[in-house]
Formats: sequence, C-alpha cells, structure tokens
Amino acid sequence: MVGIGPGDWRELTLRAVEALEAADVIVGYTLYVELIRPRLPGKEFRATGMRGEVERCKLALELARSGRSVAVICSGDAGVYGMAGLVCELIGDAPVEVEVVGGLTAATSGAALLGAPLGHDFAVISLSDQLTPWEVIERRLQCAAMGDFCVALYNPASRHRPDALRRACDALLRYAKPETVCGVARNIGRAGEATRLMTLLELSDYPADMFTTAYVGNSATRVIGGRMVTPRGYRDV
Amino acid sequence: MVGIGPGDWRELTLRAVEALEAADVIVGYTLYVELIRPRLPGKEFRATGMRGEVERCKLALELARSGRSVAVICSGDAGVYGMAGLVCELIGDAPVEVEVVGGLTAATSGAALLGAPLGHDFAVISLSDQLTPWEVIERRLQCAAMGDFCVALYNPASRHRPDALRRACDALLRYAKPETVCGVARNIGRAGEATRLMTLLELSDYPADMFTTAYVGNSATRVIGGRMVTPRGYRDV
Repeated sequence: MVGIGPGDWRELTLRAVEALEAADVIVGYTLYVELIRPRLPGKEFRATGMRGEVERCKLALELARSGRSVAVICSGDAGVYGMAGLVCELIGDAPVEVEVVGGLTAATSGAALLGAPLGHDFAVISLSDQLTPWEVIERRLQCAAMGDFCVALYNPASRHRPDALRRACDALLRYAKPETVCGVARNIGRAGEATRLMTLLELSDYPADMFTTAYVGNSATRVIGGRMVTPRGYRDV
Repeated sequence: MVGIGPGDWRELTLRAVEALEAADVIVGYTLYVELIRPRLPGKEFRATGMRGEVERCKLALELARSGRSVAVICSGDAGVYGMAGLVCELIGDAPVEVEVVGGLTAATSGAALLGAPLGHDFAVISLSDQLTPWEVIERRLQCAAMGDFCVALYNPASRHRPDALRRACDALLRYAKPETVCGVARNIGRAGEATRLMTLLELSDYPADMFTTAYVGNSATRVIGGRMVTPRGYRDV
C-alpha cells in the first residue's frame, strides 16, 4: 500500500519509490496510474476507474495470492481515506503480507503551500457523504469548531454535492467566528497549483472543486506576510 | 523548512533530499542533525539544543539574511508542531523567501505501522502543556471524543508530565467507550521501532515515553488480522 503524495513525483518518499520499483505490478485508480507511469517505464500497471475501490483491492489481493508482489497506489497517504484499511478488511486473517508505505497527505502538503495553517492541534474531515451520513460529518465539524481545532477539509465539493462546503461552513460557524482565517489549496503538486486566503464567511461561498483542499484556522490563526499561520505559542517571538 | 519524517532517511521525500543537498547550511535540533549528518558528508550543520526553537529559527534567519541558503530541519512535517509557523512569525513582512517542504508526520507514519487506524476523520492533539494550557488540551480531547474522531496523540509523556496520557484518556473516556481500540507506536522509523494494540482503558495505564505516539480509534475501529483498522465504510467488503 503505497502513498504517492499530492501528485508531483518529487513528493514521494525514497521508500515509496523503492517499493514501486520493486513491485511486479502496480494497481491504482486511472488518474494516479497516469501520474506515475512515465517514471516507471516497462512496469506492469492495472488501472481501475473511480469508485472502483473494492474491485481494485480485490484485484490486488488476487495478484498477491498468485505469488506476485503488488503495489497498490493511493494519492496522499494510503491510510488517510486511502485503500490501506479496505485491504486489511479484505485480507482479514489470511496469510497475505501487507506493508503500508507512507505518503504526504493533502492536509500537510497543502498546508506547506499556505504557510503553517496546521501549526497546532488539528482535525481532518472529509465532506464526502458517499460512505458517511451527512449528520456524522456535520457533528464532527461542530465538535472540531467547539474544540477550537484547525481543520483541513477534504473533498469539499463534487458534481453531486455542489453545496457541501457551504453547509460545512454553516456547521463550523455555529462555534467559530466568521472572520476566522481560512485558506484553500488547489491542484497541490500538479499543474494549476494555486492557493488563496479568505475568511470563514468567504469560504462558505468559495466555488471549490474536487481538486481543492480547504483549511480553517483556529481562533489564534493569523495572516502574517501573506501566509496563513497558526502559532504554536512560543514566547519571545 | 524541511520535514525529515520519522527518522529513517528512506522516509524523506525526494524533494526534501534535494533541498538538503542544495542548502549551504542545515540548522536543527541536535538529535535530528545527528540522524541525517551521515547522509550529507561535508555539509555545514548548526545544531541547537532542546527547547531552543526560537534561538534556532533566529539563527536560521540571520544566516539567510547574510545571503546563504538555509534548510531548517524538523522531525515529521515542518508545519505540524514544527518550526514553519515560528519562522513565518519571525519573518513577518520581511523579504525572506520561505519554502515549506513536507515530511511524513508521526500521525501517518506510525499509523502505517499499526495498519490503518486513521482511515476516517481524525484529530491530531499534542499532550504537551509546555506552550498550551492543559484546560485547552483537555477540552480538545473531549470534543474529539464527542465527535467520534480517531485521534493521534503526540507527546504523550515526558519526565515532567508522567501522567499526561492517563489524564488524556480520562478526558476521552467521558465520551468514548473503555473498550475503544487503541494502539501505540514507539521509535517510528528508528532503532527499537515497536507497536502494540490495546483498549482505551489499557492505554490510560500505558507507560508512554517521549518517543511514543498513541492512536485512539473511533467507535467503528476494530482489530483485524492483528492490525488496527478504522473502516471507511465501503459496502460489499
């Protein structure tokens, strides 16, 4: 299970590169396979479409059981909304060796572009209600704001949920101030990479797409020199 | 600002390696300098001691202002309880170019060793009350448990706070069940790397040290095939 980070080959760890080079076959979602294929000429790839997660992991296990060494690639980290858990579930107690190779998840790779928005305690919340009831998501948003956490919001929008980010901001606004410092990062590590700073109130109207990650500051987050910074609280600064 | 991940050189990203190789001088906490020094023979290093964060960042800025290219190394990710925010604060509006190069933070690198404990929405909370009042930490723990988040606990103990983890578990136990699946990872990516699974009640008695990261599951987290797994919720598994 290999996390390939945000998309740029340079953001892979040395260990992830080794794992991909050592694998007999690499299995992944079409978009991510196309991202790394040019770097691994001659390698066997098996690409499956969007929402094909269960099928993809079953294919990987089938290949592994036939004696082949398989790398399942995930964007970001394989354990954060990735396939690592699903593969563990499918394996159960069966004698298949699994290694999870970490990758940079969007929370930290996008944060790096904005400055240091997650410099103190933070929560990572996906706004996709594909596998999670919206009521659970909404409650987590409210609890995160109640605890004055910084928040990284994954999957803030899709064609089927154009208003997810607005509804999420409404939930956060029950406890967080409208002027809370927020930011967005788009196409992290890929063509069209861009960031923007705004308030929580402005974020609720931001036209996010599926390549956007949003960052909500805590009550101490500030804009310093054009960067979004959540201070840890050092004295004498 | 370069995150060097958990400690093993193979866990650095290609971009982090490039940044370190390109820097004129590398500044960091003594322990982390010693971890990477063997990989960069001939490089100039400036090591400062523990709790020397402000001094270290001021030194780095002084070197940068004198025209040198400086890499400040942080364990894990530079933006997660790292120096990135502090450097941004110290720079303010001054014309110093800063780039944050992401690294694997313990939440994800330790999770990879345990299986997939952070497979759904999660919170990252430091138990260090060095810079944060304990009341704030306690409130965040309670809000995280109230929201049924998975939680990664950083800095669960130190010589001066031997009971921090027990007190944290007490706070979580106000909303989470005693049998909640938990795990710990010690010395991630270094000599003596080890993991262990336990319940939340057992975690409250666990003798954590400063090289431990603890993982608390959500209400759906299970032990599957000896691994700690928080299911995303895929059907047909």
